[in-house]
Amino acid sequence: MKDIRLETGNVRIEDSFWSPYIRLVKEVVLPYQWEALNDGIEDAAPSHAIRNFRIAAGEEAGAFGGMVFQDSDVYKWLEAVGYMLGVRPDPALEAIADDVVELLAKAQQPDGYLNTYFTLQEPEHRWSNLAECHELYCAGHLIEAGVAYFQATGKRKLLDVCCRYADYVDTVFGREPGKLQGYDGHQEIELALMKLYEATGNERYVKLSQFFLDERGRQPSFYAQEYEKRVNKVHFKELNMAFDLKYSQSHLPVREQDTAVGHAVRLVYMCTGMAHLAGVTGDASLLEACRKLWANIVHKQMYITGAIGAMAYGESFTIDYDLPNDTVYGETCASIGLIFFARRMLEIEPKGEYADVLERALYNTVLGGMAMDGKHFFYVNPLEVHPKANEVNPIYGHVKVQRQQWFGCSCCPPNIARLLASLHHYVYTAQGDTLYVHLYIGGEAEVRMDGQPVRVRQDARYTSDGNVSFNIQDAGAAGPFTLAFRVPAWCEDVVYRLNGTICEPDDVRNGYAYFTRAWQSGDRLELLFDMQVQLIQSHPLVRQNAGKVALQRGPFLYCLEEADNGSHLHLLEVDREAAFTVEYDPYLLGGISTIRVESLRTEVPAEGAHLYVPHKGWAQNRVMSTFIPYYAWGNRGAGEMMVWVKAART
Amino acid sequence: MKDIRLETGNVRIEDSFWSPYIRLVKEVVLPYQWEALNDGIEDAAPSHAIRNFRIAAGEEAGAFGGMVFQDSDVYKWLEAVGYMLGVRPDPALEAIADDVVELLAKAQQPDGYLNTYFTLQEPEHRWSNLAECHELYCAGHLIEAGVAYFQATGKRKLLDVCCRYADYVDTVFGREPGKLQGYDGHQEIELALMKLYEATGNERYVKLSQFFLDERGRQPSFYAQEYEKRVNKVHFKELNMAFDLKYSQSHLPVREQDTAVGHAVRLVYMCTGMAHLAGVTGDASLLEACRKLWANIVHKQMYITGAIGAMAYGESFTIDYDLPNDTVYGETCASIGLIFFARRMLEIEPKGEYADVLERALYNTVLGGMAMDGKHFFYVNPLEVHPKANEVNPIYGHVKVQRQQWFGCSCCPPNIARLLASLHHYVYTAQGDTLYVHLYIGGEAEVRMDGQPVRVRQDARYTSDGNVSFNIQDAGAAGPFTLAFRVPAWCEDVVYRLNGTICEPDDVRNGYAYFTRAWQSGDRLELLFDMQVQLIQSHPLVRQNAGKVALQRGPFLYCLEEADNGSHLHLLEVDREAAFTVEYDPYLLGGISTIRVESLRTEVPAEGAHLYVPHKGWAQNRVMSTFIPYYAWGNRGAGEMMVWVKAART
Repeated sequence: MKDIRLETGNVRIEDSFWSPYIRLVKEVVLPYQWEALNDGIEDAAPSHAIRNFRIAAGEEAGAFGGMVFQDSDVYKWLEAVGYMLGVRPDPALEAIADDVVELLAKAQQPDGYLNTYFTLQEPEHRWSNLAECHELYCAGHLIEAGVAYFQATGKRKLLDVCCRYADYVDTVFGREPGKLQGYDGHQEIELALMKLYEATGNERYVKLSQFFLDERGRQPSFYAQEYEKRVNKVHFKELNMAFDLKYSQSHLPVREQDTAVGHAVRLVYMCTGMAHLAGVTGDASLLEACRKLWANIVHKQMYITGAIGAMAYGESFTIDYDLPNDTVYGETCASIGLIFFARRMLEIEPKGEYADVLERALYNTVLGGMAMDGKHFFYVNPLEVHPKANEVNPIYGHVKVQRQQWFGCSCCPPNIARLLASLHHYVYTAQGDTLYVHLYIGGEAEVRMDGQPVRVRQDARYTSDGNVSFNIQDAGAAGPFTLAFRVPAWCEDVVYRLNGTICEPDDVRNGYAYFTRAWQSGDRLELLFDMQVQLIQSHPLVRQNAGKVALQRGPFLYCLEEADNGSHLHLLEVDREAAFTVEYDPYLLGGISTIRVESLRTEVPAEGAHLYVPHKGWAQNRVMSTFIPYYAWGNRGAGEMMVWVKAART
Repeated sequence: MKDIRLETGNVRIEDSFWSPYIRLVKEVVLPYQWEALNDGIEDAAPSHAIRNFRIAAGEEAGAFGGMVFQDSDVYKWLEAVGYMLGVRPDPALEAIADDVVELLAKAQQPDGYLNTYFTLQEPEHRWSNLAECHELYCAGHLIEAGVAYFQATGKRKLLDVCCRYADYVDTVFGREPGKLQGYDGHQEIELALMKLYEATGNERYVKLSQFFLDERGRQPSFYAQEYEKRVNKVHFKELNMAFDLKYSQSHLPVREQDTAVGHAVRLVYMCTGMAHLAGVTGDASLLEACRKLWANIVHKQMYITGAIGAMAYGESFTIDYDLPNDTVYGETCASIGLIFFARRMLEIEPKGEYADVLERALYNTVLGGMAMDGKHFFYVNPLEVHPKANEVNPIYGHVKVQRQQWFGCSCCPPNIARLLASLHHYVYTAQGDTLYVHLYIGGEAEVRMDGQPVRVRQDARYTSDGNVSFNIQDAGAAGPFTLAFRVPAWCEDVVYRLNGTICEPDDVRNGYAYFTRAWQSGDRLELLFDMQVQLIQSHPLVRQNAGKVALQRGPFLYCLEEADNGSHLHLLEVDREAAFTVEYDPYLLGGISTIRVESLRTEVPAEGAHLYVPHKGWAQNRVMSTFIPYYAWGNRGAGEMMVWVKAART
């Protein structure tokens, strides 16, 4: 089995754009979420999450509170803390986390089982409702936390809890007689077991992950059988999980799935596990399924912002090329899961498309999912909002026009926290004597090129002027090795400069520019990415975007907001021939570059005009319209917003 | 008080376009619905409606079945039968109807009350839930049936039942101490009492109608009070009628309402009653409210097909200029109610706009609501469907892409039946010495001009070539009188010919062309309406139609269907400069004129193309696209349909 990771903790981000976000996670998001987990946020419904563990550990009396998967909020928080401690030591935070670890260990049952809902509420019904009750899902998040905490701090206690639980799960599930041939309704355990394998080297966890993936979608359906066994008892009445198998991607064996259907988060978590397993085992049919599902998502079902999940019903995919901008779901967690999937694919085969999509989701949907105060979040990420229509029509009921404080089901905030706290995992991968640079995020990294340690440093002004400086700080005793830089798909022109002199890469293939040299300490390779504003059109089969364009600059998608352009944004048409003016405004929305462009604005007739009149064309005025980066929308009160704008044909 | 009606039964339709529909109502729809009311349709849920009356009349044992307003289905059927018997005698049908009348009379309670739900199910709870339980609504439909049946047959029995019931209602409701100051959650009784007044001359019914209209919207809300009185008991759990006052237009006194909100059918039924009352009493403030609500609907919230109600939630209006074509509700009944409203406004003030809207709703939404077999119906009338997306996304759950056999709540089929059976009421109004011709539907009419009987005849080829011939068959002893012909708003050019010689009207104002003559028997006035195809654009504030056009020819809106144009209709753009080819096809969809026009069709790239690429414009081919009348859509299997089509700017 292959190890395709950089060692954890060997990348340290120092970046003018991203460091403030990571600091925000450390200083605001994690403390705020800790308060939330302890029911300390005024005006928010209590989480019950820590309290549930106290009760399960026998430290407190009382009953379980919250959702059946409430435990996972604690795990995701702990996982984020782990990543954070790995790069920014903080004894006070570590002490709190150690206490949580003690608590979890105490709440673990003698046989290794750990789940406060079932332990407190339905102890006799363990594993009776895999479709709905998230037991293995929670176990997966526990494992992710245990692995992150171990890798950051070297402390084994939580990892041991995880191993005991996983070993117990291994005694419950399997094809052997007397074991359960089931799998969780919400994929997560599969990807987590792969991480546990990487942390422990125990191949038993690889086999267990593979078991869950292999069982999924076998017919007759396990879910129908367990439903019958528990005499049709249902946990979530609004769902139909025993029979709506597409919702949980259980309608077909995973290797036979080639179209993304059902709950978007579940699908991309499943794909993450599949890709990780395929990467480690070399399972060709599994890799092929990953490629097909990737292609379907990215080429037929993904929004330009990297959002996925076109409808609120089931938080789900719909059908190919159906991408409504206003009724979209586009859950923040789904884009995070897409990033996980992209990372695993990159580890297997470095193709620029994976990192392009990763970047698209990260700089647009994920970044937009959190306010700059670290305390307000989007769960749903629309590409167009009309607040007045949204207010009255429940087809927009899931869409909020401003970020919310917290959610009843608060999966997204801690998911953003753990992604940003582990962002350093996404910048590079190393394979043999090649270091792949996927993201242009400043900071230092220590890598091994053919076993020899090498220190490198990025200085990136990627988000402002597209310039990246890549420095070999210490080449050590390494021989010649290769640096492979992703050339973003949005970039039509790159200039390379080696130690100040323009140069060309040895090769450009699959979205990467390759430079092989006997690199010396002090070598400096500059990449100057052309940041000119791009007009983007979408595939003609996306009916919702017919005749429309979107603006992109560097990794950022742009949008119109009412705050800059007045109401009725649909009256605007971008002049496709006009020049764009990009201007950086340090005081606007935390510092953004706006794009201004000449546009046509249809005149609104005087009050009393008829709705339908013979076509004479539309009277239009020339106006300047102002676009802002999509991630910054919704920070200036409720107002209209629009990504896809009509293209004027002048 | 004014009488502004033509006498009932004095118009007889003989029209190549409409007569087949009326025959269909007589020969298929009414017998089919009679079967349905008697639970005789296989594969359809039983109606229970006739059986409920039998049980209430003591003829049968059993329990109430169906919706709380199930009685109204019988009443609407009987009303349609009444209209039909008035113009096409049918002893067998009349015998069946007489039996029903006997049954209703027998089911009536000694005090005059008549409602099978409350009599059988909750006898102690009469009038305890006006918001939800449709008691007065059912009473209103009973009255409409009684009036129609009396006017058609001269038989008083049902009318007497109605009067007894209305007199009893008058003892229950009123501002006097001890009476209820309430009003029905579904408006209907108001307009029905006005009809009862016209049939009986009893002004007490005018006052009762006015009472209900005056009470509506008084605060504190009657609905909240009755809700408290019945200890919060709720009939329809999914509604919130005690507090969501906009739903039933009870949020404001009716005279203060200037914007259409809430359930669309309720609003237009209310307006019909208001306009009728204002016409009879000369109530200026009520008339002004009618004008404002009319203007709001017609200039800001009506679809080009005459559909109203932009959302499924509450079958309701949304906000001004918000007219989604795919998630629209557009209930057939709502357009029928809009026709009722228009008719009452026409009786007060003959303005072309009222008849234009009446025609728009009639020839498009209402006609489209019923299949040519008389057995399949649309409840919801979308302007755009994408069957594959509709199938998966519940925001389209209410939209059917093919007409359905019958409905659980089957208000629309009998509503279409009674409208078509009474279509002759909508063709003319007479005021003093002026005969207004609102609709161009062939047939004979007897009218009184200043008291003298005059016989006229229309021969209309209005729907095919726009030619209408209006003949004075017998001028009798009438002196000079005026004929006023509506000039449809869609018509840009009319030629008038009097006895073969081109002539000009004496006046054209408010959408009518006036001709005053000493008309002689045998005089013939021809109207040649220019039927050239029109490209229509919508008000710029309708964001859903931005950059799009619709095709209209005569009274018919047109649409694209997949059957003629292939899938992905959104790829088509109509060339605005191209000529239209109109061709009548007697074998297509019961005989329709298609419109063919050169269009541009965006090319679909090969499989695997990226979703988002730099804008280079869209490669397009020139193709012919084929439009059919909107009313005929959905008759060739499930397929895409689209009314608003992108306009190419070539």
